[in-house]
Amino acid sequence: MSKTIALNPIGRVACHGDESAIEVMPEFADALEGVEDQEYLWVLFWMHQLSPENRRRLRTHPMGDRSRTRRGVFALHSPCRPNPIGMTRVRLLSRGGNRLTVADLDALDGSPVLDIKSG
Amino acid sequence: MSKTIALNPIGRVACHGDESAIEVMPEFADALEGVEDQEYLWVLFWMHQLSPENRRRLRTHPMGDRSRTRRGVFALHSPCRPNPIGMTRVRLLSRGGNRLTVADLDALDGSPVLDIKSG
Repeated sequence: MSKTIALNPIGRVACHGDESAIEVMPEFADALEGVEDQEYLWVLFWMHQLSPENRRRLRTHPMGDRSRTRRGVFALHSPCRPNPIGMTRVRLLSRGGNRLTVADLDALDGSPVLDIKSG
Repeated sequence: MSKTIALNPIGRVACHGDESAIEVMPEFADALEGVEDQEYLWVLFWMHQLSPENRRRLRTHPMGDRSRTRRGVFALHSPCRPNPIGMTRVRLLSRGGNRLTVADLDALDGSPVLDIKSG
């Protein structure tokens, strides 16, 4: 039940100014075939900036608001969680090769991308 | 960019007959605090039954229908994908300790659970 699972990123988040993109590694290019027909995509990414301390934090204040009672992280959308996998639904604006330009990408620049699914 | 990421499951899927449940490991019990107030939850799980061959498959037939042209797995919801993380939105029916009884859990019995988020 507690066997470790190993994941290798398939790309990364690249945010510069107002532009957000997903850069997929060339070896996964075939997995993008037909993606341009999708209006929305789910992006699963690794919250690489989360500290080890925040991975161990099992309860936290909703929305980081200290005036609110702490709740379990499985009842929240907080980045604090044992396996900090982020989930963000994006609108696909364009594709240029292995690069997807998207809107509404709620992820930090440089985040390793784990998976992309039709949204 | 391709650094391996290690995850440890926080629980597992338990399906018996018509009942579907998420069993969270005791050490993560605190992370469930307040979860009973949620009507819907996102469950991220590991598709442990996916063969290594299907992890390497980058294009496949939509819905497994061989009459349809193959597409990239990042344009689909197919289980085939390099990092087979499943995403399923469930309705929470009840909580008994570390066990969540849910509806609409689209995951195989025994699947390791990676994360639970408010849905």
